[in-house]
Amino acid sequence: MRNLTPITDHPLLAVWGDSVRARRIVGERITFAVVEMAPGADVPEHHHPAEQLGMVIEGQVDFRIGDETRTMGPGGTWRIESEVPHQVKAGPDGAVVVDVFSPPRADWDGLPMVEDSTPRWPRVE
Amino acid sequence: MRNLTPITDHPLLAVWGDSVRARRIVGERITFAVVEMAPGADVPEHHHPAEQLGMVIEGQVDFRIGDETRTMGPGGTWRIESEVPHQVKAGPDGAVVVDVFSPPRADWDGLPMVEDSTPRWPRVE
Repeated sequence: MRNLTPITDHPLLAVWGDSVRARRIVGERITFAVVEMAPGADVPEHHHPAEQLGMVIEGQVDFRIGDETRTMGPGGTWRIESEVPHQVKAGPDGAVVVDVFSPPRADWDGLPMVEDSTPRWPRVE
Repeated sequence: MRNLTPITDHPLLAVWGDSVRARRIVGERITFAVVEMAPGADVPEHHHPAEQLGMVIEGQVDFRIGDETRTMGPGGTWRIESEVPHQVKAGPDGAVVVDVFSPPRADWDGLPMVEDSTPRWPRVE
């Protein structure tokens, strides 16, 4: 099994409609995802059993966890306990974020794969 | 408790001597770390009970997991099962990587805090 792989080798999944897509690596305890959000992409309030931590890599997001809200650029992080409601909206230029979950998001196995597009990040130079 | 925070608000820890430093957010199941590796920084072979997944954000690393080796830039990922030996060396310009662990690295609580320096990433514009 290959354990050292470019994230762009992994299939692109439609996580939330057509505007939120992700590639992931999956371990025994963790799902590690690079999520591409289109400009203005809107993930309405939701919750899930898995704990979720993450960080903005590029672009900007408006994040809400419970009663806490913040607009964040690169380096902005979140920590979401199991089942806590949260929502996020990408800024006008979209965003690329890392999201990690434990336990792994087995429910993502059922997500549709979408035709690969030029990754928003990393940029090919 | 604040759950939406810039990673740079968190203390800088000396993870591996003076050349590998990290800031982290800690959940119930996951430690999420942004690790700054100095140019040529060398983390010799080691292993730990926690599973570790991660990705290069900036710069380059030579990574080895067991018998698998790869030189990777931004977007290069790793998946390291519990107790599997691994080592990593930063490229000539250093590297910034995300490393996530489950269970959390409680042993990091004992790491020395180092005087904060200008973060390697994200760059202040």
